[in-house]
Amino acid sequence: MIVLGIDPGSRVTGFGVVRREGSKLMALGEGRITVPGADDPTARLCALAGEVEKLVERYRPDAVVLESLFHGVNSRSLIVLAQARGAILAAIGRAGLAATEYSPAEVKRAVTGNGRADKTQVARMVRLLLGLDAVARSADATDALAAAICFAQRQRLDALKSPPDRSSVGSGCR
Amino acid sequence: MIVLGIDPGSRVTGFGVVRREGSKLMALGEGRITVPGADDPTARLCALAGEVEKLVERYRPDAVVLESLFHGVNSRSLIVLAQARGAILAAIGRAGLAATEYSPAEVKRAVTGNGRADKTQVARMVRLLLGLDAVARSADATDALAAAICFAQRQRLDALKSPPDRSSVGSGCR
Repeated sequence: MIVLGIDPGSRVTGFGVVRREGSKLMALGEGRITVPGADDPTARLCALAGEVEKLVERYRPDAVVLESLFHGVNSRSLIVLAQARGAILAAIGRAGLAATEYSPAEVKRAVTGNGRADKTQVARMVRLLLGLDAVARSADATDALAAAICFAQRQRLDALKSPPDRSSVGSGCR
Repeated sequence: MIVLGIDPGSRVTGFGVVRREGSKLMALGEGRITVPGADDPTARLCALAGEVEKLVERYRPDAVVLESLFHGVNSRSLIVLAQARGAILAAIGRAGLAATEYSPAEVKRAVTGNGRADKTQVARMVRLLLGLDAVARSADATDALAAAICFAQRQRLDALKSPPDRSSVGSGCR
């Protein structure tokens, strides 16, 4: 079971890839997508979608996870972030996958046991759970890895029950 | 000069295609894109992007125009609309085009002379300017046609000056 977590930002989009085998989690990859800034959202969003498609081709994830958008930000930021998500979600659909969304609190709770944990604590637990160096190598990827861990853990719990997690099943669009 | 106007909605996306020859405007097409509702935004946004790509292939526009998002709507609606825009903008970029944005007030002013005109007045002027029946055949397409008219008119004014309209020049992303 391979999970791709994506954390879309206005300038940088973090990603993290987690494999689960039984109860064991490991990181297959992590990093950041940066696309040419420019005034031109069509070129930027198209490039972002293209990079996400490359990640899917490279890691062949079984599931894709994003954190849901935080409604508290101002509407200009919300539009920029949601447009990035729209381009990413369409690319995921084109790859025949669906995306699962978790709130930031759900992700924090899954990783630290506390839905209001701070960034440092989340980063530390992500590294610990994945057996990585304590020092974050890619801060942008931490939230993406955390979202992927959240999915992998839930999916493991669901696998112990039945039926399988509905949210992980997607038909894509092509 | 062929202009494709797009009006993304949460359920229905309107489109309108306008050709300008000198000072003459005519409608080449108009309609609505509806994609399967469903809970799955990846499939929905991917299908929406696919329909926009088909429009571009069919009408081969020189420019694409969207109305900018109205910031007053609640954040949940804003996210849904901005995600649709993100998928559409990425598709436009993939087709090698850029998109121009106008505020609703700019579009209304271009079509009626009044930035605060109501919907009925806008619809009436759109039909008049394009020489169409007074009765709107596709209400969803009216705003899209209005945006396309706004672009075509400005581009004509700019063509009388120099340099050419910067906003219409785009490199796309592939």
